[in-house]
Amino acid sequence: MTSGPRTVRAARGNKLTAKSWQTEAPMRMLMNNLDPEVAEHPEKLVVYGGTGKAARTWEAYDAIVRTLETLESDETLLVQSGKPVGVFRTNEWAPRVLIANSNLVGDWATWPEFRKLEAEGLTMYGQMTAGSWIYIGTQGILQGTYETFGAVARQHFGGTLAGTLTLTGGCGGMGGAQPLAVTMNDGVVLIVDVDASRLERRVEHGYLDEMTHDLDDAIARVLAAKESKTPLSVGIVGNAADVFTELLERKVPIDIVTDQTSAHDPLSYLPEGVSVEEWHAKAEADAVWFTEHSRAAMAKQVKAMVEFQDAGAIVFDYGNSIRAEAKLGGYDRAFEFPGFVPAYIRPLFCEGNGPFRWAALSGDPEDIAKTDKAILELFPENEHLKRWITKAGEKVHFEGLPARICWLGYKERHLAGLKFNEMVASGELSAPIVIGRDHLDSGSVASPYRETEAMKDGSDAIADWPLLNALLNTASGATWVSLHHGGGVGIGRSIHSGQVTVADGTPLAAQKLERVLTNDPGTGVMRHVDAGYDRAEEVARERGLRVPMQEG
Amino acid sequence: MTSGPRTVRAARGNKLTAKSWQTEAPMRMLMNNLDPEVAEHPEKLVVYGGTGKAARTWEAYDAIVRTLETLESDETLLVQSGKPVGVFRTNEWAPRVLIANSNLVGDWATWPEFRKLEAEGLTMYGQMTAGSWIYIGTQGILQGTYETFGAVARQHFGGTLAGTLTLTGGCGGMGGAQPLAVTMNDGVVLIVDVDASRLERRVEHGYLDEMTHDLDDAIARVLAAKESKTPLSVGIVGNAADVFTELLERKVPIDIVTDQTSAHDPLSYLPEGVSVEEWHAKAEADAVWFTEHSRAAMAKQVKAMVEFQDAGAIVFDYGNSIRAEAKLGGYDRAFEFPGFVPAYIRPLFCEGNGPFRWAALSGDPEDIAKTDKAILELFPENEHLKRWITKAGEKVHFEGLPARICWLGYKERHLAGLKFNEMVASGELSAPIVIGRDHLDSGSVASPYRETEAMKDGSDAIADWPLLNALLNTASGATWVSLHHGGGVGIGRSIHSGQVTVADGTPLAAQKLERVLTNDPGTGVMRHVDAGYDRAEEVARERGLRVPMQEG
Ligand SMILES: NC(=O)c1ccc[n+]([C@@H]2O[C@H](COP(=O)([O-])OP(=O)(O)OC[C@H]3O[C@@H](n4cnc5c(N)ncnc54)[C@H](O)[C@@H]3O)[C@@H](O)[C@H]2O)c1
Ligand SMILES: NC(=O)c1ccc[n+]([C@@H]2O[C@H](COP(=O)([O-])OP(=O)(O)OC[C@H]3O[C@@H](n4cnc5c(N)ncnc54)[C@H](O)[C@@H]3O)[C@@H](O)[C@H]2O)c1
Repeated sequence: MTSGPRTVRAARGNKLTAKSWQTEAPMRMLMNNLDPEVAEHPEKLVVYGGTGKAARTWEAYDAIVRTLETLESDETLLVQSGKPVGVFRTNEWAPRVLIANSNLVGDWATWPEFRKLEAEGLTMYGQMTAGSWIYIGTQGILQGTYETFGAVARQHFGGTLAGTLTLTGGCGGMGGAQPLAVTMNDGVVLIVDVDASRLERRVEHGYLDEMTHDLDDAIARVLAAKESKTPLSVGIVGNAADVFTELLERKVPIDIVTDQTSAHDPLSYLPEGVSVEEWHAKAEADAVWFTEHSRAAMAKQVKAMVEFQDAGAIVFDYGNSIRAEAKLGGYDRAFEFPGFVPAYIRPLFCEGNGPFRWAALSGDPEDIAKTDKAILELFPENEHLKRWITKAGEKVHFEGLPARICWLGYKERHLAGLKFNEMVASGELSAPIVIGRDHLDSGSVASPYRETEAMKDGSDAIADWPLLNALLNTASGATWVSLHHGGGVGIGRSIHSGQVTVADGTPLAAQKLERVLTNDPGTGVMRHVDAGYDRAEEVARERGLRVPMQEG
Repeated sequence: MTSGPRTVRAARGNKLTAKSWQTEAPMRMLMNNLDPEVAEHPEKLVVYGGTGKAARTWEAYDAIVRTLETLESDETLLVQSGKPVGVFRTNEWAPRVLIANSNLVGDWATWPEFRKLEAEGLTMYGQMTAGSWIYIGTQGILQGTYETFGAVARQHFGGTLAGTLTLTGGCGGMGGAQPLAVTMNDGVVLIVDVDASRLERRVEHGYLDEMTHDLDDAIARVLAAKESKTPLSVGIVGNAADVFTELLERKVPIDIVTDQTSAHDPLSYLPEGVSVEEWHAKAEADAVWFTEHSRAAMAKQVKAMVEFQDAGAIVFDYGNSIRAEAKLGGYDRAFEFPGFVPAYIRPLFCEGNGPFRWAALSGDPEDIAKTDKAILELFPENEHLKRWITKAGEKVHFEGLPARICWLGYKERHLAGLKFNEMVASGELSAPIVIGRDHLDSGSVASPYRETEAMKDGSDAIADWPLLNALLNTASGATWVSLHHGGGVGIGRSIHSGQVTVADGTPLAAQKLERVLTNDPGTGVMRHVDAGYDRAEEVARERGLRVPMQEG
């Protein structure tokens, strides 16, 4: 038996290869993760995020598929870092697949140890949704960014960015979602990138409206749009250290400032005076010189950011460590503006608000259009959600199986799940829907450099929470559950869990969806109640979450 | 609401305080862990193992009990490091309690970080069975030691230690179980301890038959017993470094050599020439001098052990790091004899053999006597088991609720579970039985310094396995499931999981017991198949465990 790379694409339509939708669903979603439209390096089983894989080897992939094809509805398959290791008789309420990826005992939780074990064929890197079979392409990034700017809008601008001007840097893989996320929130944005080709690419894909090399021109265009409250994104070719400083000096009326240049790595941030063409040669030739200069440039950019804040703008760090690098570059006030998680995401987490994504197993975009409509009908008051769903319907190009993502809170998600299940039952949708999420949710992650940075009670590093989340989802009827180590921040730095539940139209699926989609975000509210957040306590009280230490 | 220390003891009899036995059981077992007969420092909620606790605070204890009293049979309570944090609606098959204790994100998995978080009230140390509510007192240690010597007997002496002479050192908290464990295996043992009071204590408790200060006398007694194949344990007061060497020189016909002096800490091992009275003052006054001398003494003792092996004896390290210390003491051949896990425990783990413990919720010792009898009837061919059950019945004094422990393998444990459940149903037993285990089982632990040391494929540090074990037990119907970090080897060094399932006599309990007690040891066989152990592969094949990579 040898086995090797081939082109994988999930089956469409409603003919089963497996014995039921509960096993067909994980099989199709595994395949969908490896679809060339979805995966970065499908031949290497790599889905996204560096080396985030869907299966350890092609032999392991084959064995997973083979096993899912014959798995009974009271059996459970165990997957250890992308390799199927056992099949057990459980019960109908139990998950059909249980997954643990990349986990190591604490003292061995280092990159060198992980790489050694990976080379020996004993583990793989699961990222978040790669090894848990629920990646849906770049829509996820766009939506996350939309969510952050939406939270900025709600906290500071009465719920919309209309009439506001945002300044940001970096239009790369992640950062390139910023212009569209801002305009989807009805705002105006000026985005600075040194590399014209990055801006051009985003114009081509419809993520950026316009671009220019002339700063006066750029300023004129964004100010006109701000004035008329017309959503607009403009890319300006330039160095953020220079452009941010220049805009500050010219007192351009900017409302929001952030940045997504690749500041986490000093060799990937271009200092002023170096051209894009010289960049990589210079960085390689003299990394010390380059680091010193890029840190000085970041210090200059961050100084401008802090002074924008002094002048009244809303300023936040968008997870690229630019504050830390600027501090190393000699700028003492670097940490005067907050990180985006404590400032904008945590308030959402306190409400159990977080990612809710679904995919149509039929492969029919019509099914997503119908579910989009159902979401709008379910939450008619939620303007922010309405804006996203509407614009995503227009702007988002599906990769692999048609899918959608939005953020919903505690005691909201299960309503959507039950509705979709009814639509499958009635035949309105042409095949079942899978409902899952990223691991970046309110109750499912311990990650002291990102999601649990600066928790109110100092519990950033406590990892009991994601473990309880995974155990509870397993107990609540999820179709597959995963527990990962590493993810976006790397080995040693996070533990997180995921769940996916299938809406196959049966009454049992309805019960399971009701439990999982209530309990999963419920653990997020619970975790934030325990950390002492008032809003979480309020939500628990108002929406009926039982917290034993608050009773009796 | 203030709350504080009080004397706790589980209710006896079959009147319920909670709504069902599925919730009464965890409540009584939590209380039993804090019974003064069971717990080391009940007022501090400390059960055993330094700071292993059953609940974080007395307030948390009260809230757990209060919640269990009203918990419905489709609800689940979440406990985060000894504190109840949420109640969720799940389903009848789900566990009633899910527990995560002491878990930290890898880079923060250190003692100083743990202690800081513990001091801030954010976590507690769960040990293994303290925070998972299934500690049953010192019987566990005795049985584990019996199991190791039983494995030695099977591997080297045709299944019995009759006619063999064992030499060991250290008759303290753990080591004091050795003499009784050897005589229960029908062997003769000479145990050396510098501290006469330790030997006296064990004579008083019936763990040691005789003691003497005279080596000639001791030798005469053990040789006579060995000759006549009469089980006998003799304690000799002396320094193990001296006595081991002397016995080697005199060519006393010793068959088995091991040691459980507290060698892991050089200040707790007494060098020759220092008296017990001077010990602590000397160690404190000059730790460097003391360490140097104790390591030299350990080198001397280990040299004797290696040379006993040269002469044909069976020699093994019993988990106290004496080989490593002897090496530091300058003895190069120290690692020539094996550790006890790879040598004796791993072969058992390959068969899914591991701890199976149960307690009678009635509090009636008669119930345990009846289950003892049932075990003997279920496994009539298993002489080793029969010897243990019979002798434990005679020798073991119950602490707290009457309980028993033995080791059973894959496709054995569920038979015992089903039998006990029938006995509850028929009224033969006066109340339900809880069935659980320690975390030191074949599929439930990743611990590179102990249970997973020197795995055949180098997968010692891979922590996916205990996580899968916990998820699978949750999916299989266990009544409570726990996931812990730390345990016996400390923070950063292990991840392990536990399960307890209640035999309440119902048909549903029978189904759950059948699944859990098959799947739980099944993950052990699976883990050892994956690591490449032939015996595990054989067991999987013969007893019908599905391993996908071996199919197709
Ligand atoms: N929000 C989060 O938690 C989160 C998630 C993912 C990534 N990130 C961080 O966001 C950053 C960007 O990620 P990405 O995937 O888009 O990276 P990327 O490398 O694809 O893009 C970075 C862009 O910055 C530009 N750039 C570099 N130096 C510049 C300068 N001086 N002035 C103007 N432009 C400059 C580059 O030309 C490039 O287009 C990274 O640091 C990443 O770690 C944060
Ligand atoms: N098998 C396992 O995995 C496992 C489990 C628990 C403990 N241990 C190890 O076993 C060891 C013993 O544990 P314990 O709880 O019984 O410790 P303990 O401190 O209660 O007992 C140690 C005994 O050794 C005696 N001793 C010290 N130096 C001596 C010498 N030179 N000669 C003779 N006797 C000497 C002491 O008087 C004492 O009675 C420890 O190192 C512990 O880490 C191993």
